[in-house]
Amino acid sequence: MLKAEIIAIGSELLTPSRQDTNSLWLTDKLNEYGIHVWQKHIIGDNRKELSDLLKQAMDRSDFVLTSGGLGPTFDDISREAFADALDAELVYHDKIYDYIRKELRKRDVEPTENNRRQGNVPEGCDYVLNPVGTAPGIIYKNENVRVALLPGPPKELKGVFKRMAKKLFSNLDQTPVHTKVFKMITIPERRAEEKLRSIELPDNAEWSILASLGQVEAHLRITSSDTSEVEEITRKFETELTDCIGQRFFGYDEESIESLVAGLLSDNGHTIAVAESCTAGWLGKRLTDVSGSSEYMAGGIISYSNEVKESLLNVEKSALEKLGAVSREVALQMARGVKNALATEIGVSITGVAGPSGGTEEKPVGTVYIAVSGPGDKEMCHRFHFLGDRDSVRFMSTQSALDMIRVVYTGKEYESAYVKE
Amino acid sequence: MLKAEIIAIGSELLTPSRQDTNSLWLTDKLNEYGIHVWQKHIIGDNRKELSDLLKQAMDRSDFVLTSGGLGPTFDDISREAFADALDAELVYHDKIYDYIRKELRKRDVEPTENNRRQGNVPEGCDYVLNPVGTAPGIIYKNENVRVALLPGPPKELKGVFKRMAKKLFSNLDQTPVHTKVFKMITIPERRAEEKLRSIELPDNAEWSILASLGQVEAHLRITSSDTSEVEEITRKFETELTDCIGQRFFGYDEESIESLVAGLLSDNGHTIAVAESCTAGWLGKRLTDVSGSSEYMAGGIISYSNEVKESLLNVEKSALEKLGAVSREVALQMARGVKNALATEIGVSITGVAGPSGGTEEKPVGTVYIAVSGPGDKEMCHRFHFLGDRDSVRFMSTQSALDMIRVVYTGKEYESAYVKE
Repeated sequence: MLKAEIIAIGSELLTPSRQDTNSLWLTDKLNEYGIHVWQKHIIGDNRKELSDLLKQAMDRSDFVLTSGGLGPTFDDISREAFADALDAELVYHDKIYDYIRKELRKRDVEPTENNRRQGNVPEGCDYVLNPVGTAPGIIYKNENVRVALLPGPPKELKGVFKRMAKKLFSNLDQTPVHTKVFKMITIPERRAEEKLRSIELPDNAEWSILASLGQVEAHLRITSSDTSEVEEITRKFETELTDCIGQRFFGYDEESIESLVAGLLSDNGHTIAVAESCTAGWLGKRLTDVSGSSEYMAGGIISYSNEVKESLLNVEKSALEKLGAVSREVALQMARGVKNALATEIGVSITGVAGPSGGTEEKPVGTVYIAVSGPGDKEMCHRFHFLGDRDSVRFMSTQSALDMIRVVYTGKEYESAYVKE
Repeated sequence: MLKAEIIAIGSELLTPSRQDTNSLWLTDKLNEYGIHVWQKHIIGDNRKELSDLLKQAMDRSDFVLTSGGLGPTFDDISREAFADALDAELVYHDKIYDYIRKELRKRDVEPTENNRRQGNVPEGCDYVLNPVGTAPGIIYKNENVRVALLPGPPKELKGVFKRMAKKLFSNLDQTPVHTKVFKMITIPERRAEEKLRSIELPDNAEWSILASLGQVEAHLRITSSDTSEVEEITRKFETELTDCIGQRFFGYDEESIESLVAGLLSDNGHTIAVAESCTAGWLGKRLTDVSGSSEYMAGGIISYSNEVKESLLNVEKSALEKLGAVSREVALQMARGVKNALATEIGVSITGVAGPSGGTEEKPVGTVYIAVSGPGDKEMCHRFHFLGDRDSVRFMSTQSALDMIRVVYTGKEYESAYVKE
């Protein structure tokens, strides 16, 4: 398998609060060409250090991609460092500087003498003009290694990369790699992994797990030039995944639970309102992350105090006193109450103990009731137990609420590893 | 200056969606000891590759810190790779395994044969037991380099690092570095930087800017053993920063705008309610990020639709029709309305055009009105214009709302670069 390493250049990326994110995007693109990223590095704006690292990387990898250090200032040393690594001279290209001057003038910026430096390219290298900025990208190829120097700003990096991809990856004779992402919601990572392990795949296919809070993704990669083979393996994987993961499997690739729920509500012409206690508005925020959400979102009531639960949601005082604010009955009354108050088809409520304080033996920190009332006379309410800190409990509550709305539309019984009846 | 490099170990960190974040925390800690991080690396779970990198790093750096690869499974190869790099044997320590067994049994987990591997430490190294997990940390020191192998899970990394810091940094003979962070809210990064540039500092002091959305931090670092000198420079810097930044400077170090506002409300015994349109609950969520927020937070009304603004917040139909939902008058009526409906001392409202659609020439995307009503008969309302995508506009709206609540308690007029009256 072809191996790549990625080098992010810039002293600011070695401070406690800045991070290289370009390498994530580049990794995804390289993976699409069947190229494996096996090392990543972050290094400051130092010519000698960078040229040493470039030499090492070119010795051991098939591809070396760098980001940053191509700007006009004297901190920008990628051109010089790469020339040192190649033991080559810098050659000045009038064509590059002409293009930069023209682009800057379009934006009413006067080019400075520094911009001239951006016209320099190490001898033996090719270049690609920058469609969204000034710094050109630089390409070098020999029989052992291919190197691409890309600008640091993410938009410029992507623009230049796309322009040079054809040259950079020409005649690779690699079998193409097809990726499909299967998304699962509110299932513990370990459980998903155990279940998927039983799926048998041919040698040219493999899957890996990527988990974030409340979501697990299975990335299926198939190396094949045969489209019907790719389709067959994908279909088989999906069938077996659906068998073992069941309802927890919700979507593909770029789909998010927010966009899925938005689509369900819009397609059905239903409006929704939220009644939030411990999450205090977070569910409302997530339901409106998607542009165009005014089509289905009416609003909601944040009933952090019991008084508000009574006065605005019509929750019975007796239920609050006898059963407590964190109870099935109060969750159901909140969902019905907000549906009535805002005259929507669906009402969703969340009430729980987010912690770190407020837990009891009967209702420890992490205990949350979520109810969905509607559409029509459908009703659903579950008791959950979430682990983790305040932030995790609150996020998982909104995640499970979105998930319950989704399942209402499947017409099935709701199931989740976090339900603790 | 002493130089460190940090190596994050784990094949999952080389995928398109996972990122090493431990190195940010470690960089901050190393900087506190006056140690400069000059390279960072990310490498997969491969024994030979890691041991090669460790050898190189030990040759060129004063400190080498690694994270990950210390777990019980056969993917975890840090112990073996480091032994290879040192050309040493692994020595099994009964004490480590005894401790791990005890810890696992406390959690009702039966130790497996694999956990035994965690008892292995390369000859010539010292170890530190893990206060929050099983994997011990490993330390090595010779006259040229000091190496620390830390576990990957962030809580375990921090716990083990704190336990080994004294050993790792003993007898450094470095002049201590004192850091103080000055926090500024809703000021453009460039403007803060330009203003601070006029501050003159002695050679042993420097500042740098770290910006995130809606917040800019100035990190002041003073290298000195003289406490009164440190105090004097800090005082001078703060005085000049206050002069040029004014009201936008709000706190120090770990303080957040959420915790500051929580403190102001609690200390004054005031309750608060929110009326949110375009942010749809995000402000409520942030006001309750802090544990103990039930002391001041009553709740709120998410009035995403105009009907809800009328029915639950008592906004006049005529104001909505004549001036539009995104207007000064409607924002003020929303703030008053929620204060009355929830019977609190303070009501805060947000109404705006988050985009990407919905903008007009008069009220382009990013136009947001924020009002604060109370405590008492105080009232404040401003028109803002925020740049960026939907998420940025919505976040900046909640950030500015929190900021306005803060400024109410200073008794001063509100000022911000984002106010566009």
